[in-house]
Amino acid sequence: MAVFNFSAGPSTLPRSVLEEARDELVDYGGSGASLVELSHRGPEYTAVHEDAIALARSVFSVPEDFAVLFLQGGATLQFSMVPMNFLGEGRSAAYVISGAWAKKAFADAQLYGTAYGAWDGDRGGYDRMPRPEELELAPDTRYLHVTSNETIGGIQMFDWPEAGAPLIADMSSDVMSRPIPWRLFDLVYAGAQKNLGPAGASIVFVREAALESTNRELGAYLRYDLHRDGNSLFNTPPVFSIWLIGKVLRRLVEQGGLAAVATLGRRKAALLYDAIDGSGGFYTSPVQRDSRSLMNVVFNVPGEQLEQRFLSACSDVGLVGLKGHRSVGGVRASLYNAMPLEGVEALVAVMSEFQAENS
Amino acid sequence: MAVFNFSAGPSTLPRSVLEEARDELVDYGGSGASLVELSHRGPEYTAVHEDAIALARSVFSVPEDFAVLFLQGGATLQFSMVPMNFLGEGRSAAYVISGAWAKKAFADAQLYGTAYGAWDGDRGGYDRMPRPEELELAPDTRYLHVTSNETIGGIQMFDWPEAGAPLIADMSSDVMSRPIPWRLFDLVYAGAQKNLGPAGASIVFVREAALESTNRELGAYLRYDLHRDGNSLFNTPPVFSIWLIGKVLRRLVEQGGLAAVATLGRRKAALLYDAIDGSGGFYTSPVQRDSRSLMNVVFNVPGEQLEQRFLSACSDVGLVGLKGHRSVGGVRASLYNAMPLEGVEALVAVMSEFQAENS
Repeated sequence: MAVFNFSAGPSTLPRSVLEEARDELVDYGGSGASLVELSHRGPEYTAVHEDAIALARSVFSVPEDFAVLFLQGGATLQFSMVPMNFLGEGRSAAYVISGAWAKKAFADAQLYGTAYGAWDGDRGGYDRMPRPEELELAPDTRYLHVTSNETIGGIQMFDWPEAGAPLIADMSSDVMSRPIPWRLFDLVYAGAQKNLGPAGASIVFVREAALESTNRELGAYLRYDLHRDGNSLFNTPPVFSIWLIGKVLRRLVEQGGLAAVATLGRRKAALLYDAIDGSGGFYTSPVQRDSRSLMNVVFNVPGEQLEQRFLSACSDVGLVGLKGHRSVGGVRASLYNAMPLEGVEALVAVMSEFQAENS
Repeated sequence: MAVFNFSAGPSTLPRSVLEEARDELVDYGGSGASLVELSHRGPEYTAVHEDAIALARSVFSVPEDFAVLFLQGGATLQFSMVPMNFLGEGRSAAYVISGAWAKKAFADAQLYGTAYGAWDGDRGGYDRMPRPEELELAPDTRYLHVTSNETIGGIQMFDWPEAGAPLIADMSSDVMSRPIPWRLFDLVYAGAQKNLGPAGASIVFVREAALESTNRELGAYLRYDLHRDGNSLFNTPPVFSIWLIGKVLRRLVEQGGLAAVATLGRRKAALLYDAIDGSGGFYTSPVQRDSRSLMNVVFNVPGEQLEQRFLSACSDVGLVGLKGHRSVGGVRASLYNAMPLEGVEALVAVMSEFQAENS
């Protein structure tokens, strides 16, 4: 039985990428050794590393004056590194509190400087992103932090705010699903384990000019400037993760790049939201329409008992990873790049059948 | 041609571990998905994670009152996390400055509190570890930091100092080569990419009682107590690395555990040091005899031209990764656990032949 894995992350990867990695895992390019055994300063890994960076530059159309870094510690370590590097005397940071992930980023920022909420979605139960005009920034704001997609709440930001401060964004769960308007950003970070590759690495795009005034009184691993100077080889990198990220990026290029992926992504999400909206209220979305995430489609089935049976019906036909986050319950279908249209079609078919049998 | 990879890290892994990983990479245990695609809170990864921790507890005979953590960022992030968590008002830390790695740890500690050198090997060019009686500790010392093995200098600590403060040790390059006398330690850390597995994870053993007074005013990723509370699942773990670490640990158990590995390790190192010492001064060791590392055997060939030719002669018969660290030159043979005795025998044979042809 073919399995479609709707898990929110770690999440499904292109089958061809995994097969390639399998074929190369024990003997890399005739070297007699695995890539994960070879020195990170040797020719084999150097080529893989440079290639992953060059592909990331190309896929994301990264401007010359941005550095591309691969770091460890996931987005969670970035929650600390961002304020540690960018805050200091007389500088504050604004945070859009859009849900569970934004709250974590905000909590860490408050430990390393003056950070304030520029908007908080708590009154609406975090059911939408703010409209740009709702944001109010203090005059000394160094950056405005946004979470482009909340995987738990299932909401996504489509209008980037231009509120008088450069943006810093956590794009962990929707990076590589659409182009990034670089002129608005000083830094973008994303854990790899959604669209980019396996867990264990995060990608950071940072404007070179912004690195000129970052805090140097930090432990070495925590300094963006040192990672930039060392081209992410300042210390031993997470070889396997970067290797697979390179393969995922190459496959994306072959499939037409971000534009093609964005088109397919809209199609997949529309199929599923249409099924929800067309169910006459059997399936419901807790999210406001203009903030509906194209990556994580959250919806409810009437009643806990039916929800359990629905998840079983899905799992019976190989649709797995659909249980909502333990903090909110419900159903969540993550439609990352590697999820084929057929997976969504199969899910919509089960939804229709299940509704017919249970309403 | 069989290749023996003497690289200092990332370094050689057991072939059987890589073959197992290859066979399981695309379809994990009949799940239809790769382990690196599955949720880190699902049953498949949970079993792998628990297994790796249990095996680490067993292999290292970890006492009940120590936690075992898997973190990201390598030993380099630990250079910051240790002082961040353990230093504070009225507490200082002593560092044994034994070489390149100790210096990095010390530099980071100075940023996060009062840290002082308890001994510095610079006068001898870092050619040995201190004798315990050479260390002088101030009365308020929270911990004494040691680097158990300096991969670049090729020296190793055999007498653990009992100097009036708990030890915290960077064991990145000799962890899993000998038993650890836990009563002396509050914390032990090691990057995985030498004896333990592929790059991308570090292992941390920490005394539970020591966590009671660690600093809580830190970003979430930087707090040992949160990683302990979350059983290293506080955020998405580096799945691939932990998976392979578990396999390496299981293989070690099958081979007789730490005692067997320590015996073989001494035999491998003795073979190589005997070849150096028996060369009548053709090959020379820059390291004092009682600090000679069993993990990284550093030696010199007379003259730079001969050194180049020696490295070529090795590489011609499949002995690779022998170039000394770029900061010190010379030859370095890393004899981590996965290096079989046959690899060392092959190296010694080349040394003998090369000397006969060139002296």
